[in-house]
Amino acid sequence: MHMHDLIRELREPNTTKIVLLVADGLGGLPIEPGGKTELETARTPNLDALAAEGTVGLSTPVAPGITPGSGPGHLGLFGYDPLQYQIGRGVLEALGIGVEVGPKDVAIRGNFCTIDEEGRVTDRRAGRIPTEVCEQLVTKLRAGIKIEGVETLIEAVREYRLVVRFRGEGLGDNVCDTDPLSTGLHTLEPKAGDVASEKTAHIAAEFLRQAKAILKDERPANFLMLRGFAKFPDIATMEDVYGLKPVAIAVYPMYRGLARLVGMTVADPGKTIADQLEVAKANWDKYDFFFIHYKYTDSTGEDGNFAKKVEVIEALDAEIPKLRALKPDVLVVTGDHSTPSRMKSHSFHPVPTLLWAPATTRPDLVTTFGERPCLQGGLGQFLAKDIMPLVLAHAGRLQKFGA
Amino acid sequence: MHMHDLIRELREPNTTKIVLLVADGLGGLPIEPGGKTELETARTPNLDALAAEGTVGLSTPVAPGITPGSGPGHLGLFGYDPLQYQIGRGVLEALGIGVEVGPKDVAIRGNFCTIDEEGRVTDRRAGRIPTEVCEQLVTKLRAGIKIEGVETLIEAVREYRLVVRFRGEGLGDNVCDTDPLSTGLHTLEPKAGDVASEKTAHIAAEFLRQAKAILKDERPANFLMLRGFAKFPDIATMEDVYGLKPVAIAVYPMYRGLARLVGMTVADPGKTIADQLEVAKANWDKYDFFFIHYKYTDSTGEDGNFAKKVEVIEALDAEIPKLRALKPDVLVVTGDHSTPSRMKSHSFHPVPTLLWAPATTRPDLVTTFGERPCLQGGLGQFLAKDIMPLVLAHAGRLQKFGA
Repeated sequence: MHMHDLIRELREPNTTKIVLLVADGLGGLPIEPGGKTELETARTPNLDALAAEGTVGLSTPVAPGITPGSGPGHLGLFGYDPLQYQIGRGVLEALGIGVEVGPKDVAIRGNFCTIDEEGRVTDRRAGRIPTEVCEQLVTKLRAGIKIEGVETLIEAVREYRLVVRFRGEGLGDNVCDTDPLSTGLHTLEPKAGDVASEKTAHIAAEFLRQAKAILKDERPANFLMLRGFAKFPDIATMEDVYGLKPVAIAVYPMYRGLARLVGMTVADPGKTIADQLEVAKANWDKYDFFFIHYKYTDSTGEDGNFAKKVEVIEALDAEIPKLRALKPDVLVVTGDHSTPSRMKSHSFHPVPTLLWAPATTRPDLVTTFGERPCLQGGLGQFLAKDIMPLVLAHAGRLQKFGA
Repeated sequence: MHMHDLIRELREPNTTKIVLLVADGLGGLPIEPGGKTELETARTPNLDALAAEGTVGLSTPVAPGITPGSGPGHLGLFGYDPLQYQIGRGVLEALGIGVEVGPKDVAIRGNFCTIDEEGRVTDRRAGRIPTEVCEQLVTKLRAGIKIEGVETLIEAVREYRLVVRFRGEGLGDNVCDTDPLSTGLHTLEPKAGDVASEKTAHIAAEFLRQAKAILKDERPANFLMLRGFAKFPDIATMEDVYGLKPVAIAVYPMYRGLARLVGMTVADPGKTIADQLEVAKANWDKYDFFFIHYKYTDSTGEDGNFAKKVEVIEALDAEIPKLRALKPDVLVVTGDHSTPSRMKSHSFHPVPTLLWAPATTRPDLVTTFGERPCLQGGLGQFLAKDIMPLVLAHAGRLQKFGA
């Protein structure tokens, strides 16, 4: 029995409020053998208090040993098995900038790039052109590109990045990327991996042919590459599955896109975590599930900046009292994956997670929030997709199963 | 591969004795933040000794966040995935009072109730009439009710509760309850939810029509309601799956019913846990699996009586030496779910579990039995359905898998 069907059967309305605070890439590693992780190093009196009053554990985003991207990492936290629901990168990118993606669409990420006279890639990111240049080029492409039998939409994202969406009948998304992944090579042809995607590959090839002509005199962005061809997945909304009215308060487009994917309303988040908490407060009565995304634990980890990651964890900790002041019934603090600054990348390590629900938490013996303390916690080690049923239970939103 | 098929393949005979002691609703919560649970508060030298010599952990009855009824809770402990085997309440109630339920039967729970002159329910439990009155009314109904094409059996349960069983061809069990769930409303018609259940709905309607006429001058029980229409599920016996000869020693009907469901012999249990252990002793040579059910950890929790729950845990602890004197090879002490007195209901919290098997237990560092100590135990956190394979292994009843 699919857990979503069981939840649909058991769920019952309640006025309880749930907050899911995702500190992206929260989990870490010590720099020195035997040392402390970023989270263990940070001074976090407020998170520690939540850990002491609540219960903690370690979340495995997808499966042991699997390092998740942002998509699978968040889907798991939203209660969707990331191995069942696979979301293409093109769709995420499109949703992230507010481009709608429906059942007839294929969404694709684009990169402006620089090619030499022989057509070899010399810069895969076209010198990271400013966003305004990107926008001008996108305007040119829009004006020039005409492909029969398909509606083409082109949108700038940021710097060298854009989104292309083809809308039409019979468009599969099994088309390979055209990025050769290193300089000195020619871009690849968009080849179809199955019959259902041949039309899409053909359209993409025509798109690239026209784009090359339009961009030929531009510098440095005299061409573009397409990757992450993706259709919208067949996925139920959080309202449908859980009966919740969810809102996403996320500064970065990708996470707003992920939230839209599962039917969350996306609020204007402001610019800082303090703004985001103000937005949560202002919307407290309108929603019952608040997904708040904090990016900097991941970006500092990706940068390999241990000290800075510690700092942004402490900055997040300092905002926790504002969250507590809202008096949520259930508060979860976790990450979508680990991003150890030592590895400068996402990793497969389980993610420190705390669940605070004053009415129903069974406390454990843990009094601080960190990777090692979480090993002793009441949540144990669990799959990220199991957190939502637990959250609903603590929120008094699930009836008893069976007699 | 279904775990039952694997066990059928690997099982081997042995003369070892297994005891599964289920303290219903064993798990709890502290009343005060940071306080102790009922089990942690109770003085339990004998359970602590078992925990110290054996190994402990926490059992999740169905899935994280799911609060089980008694049916799913016990099926899990018996090694049957509660999400795969769903047992209707009518069947449980019937089995619990010794009414056989076979493949041609639909079993239904009945409640005597009080209705006013307009037919509106004024008391859904007919003033909780004494069991003797219930029995008299059932005798009257038996004498009066005649429905063609079906064999009707009516049995008193306790107080206002009865069981109705229809036996005949083509009886589906997808029929809605007739209990309107609050007073001031009319009882509902028994409506079929599918074509296969239309005959059952029709028979139930006729049953209610005749019952109303028979009961019309009774007070307070002048009508009855039907709920939990259910057929016998397709479920293999414990003897078939495990090769065990199991016996159930349970004071309350529901748990005897659950045991019958998986093919256990049901012994006359006496009235107290001391009686039950005498019965176990008297039957020690006849069976190899002893399911002993202790109700009071649940009922005191349901009453919200923390102190009383502590007391009944201590009373259970005091009986443990008698159990040890039988020298079982494997002894499991657990619950079918948690019933925190703070919540006055079943809950989704994992259940403290201990496994004692002197010949094969790998001990952990835990020396007391309680929710927090169990977090440190060698069994970890596990699904209840996984306990039976472990038990069989400790009982030397499973061969090696593969060469």
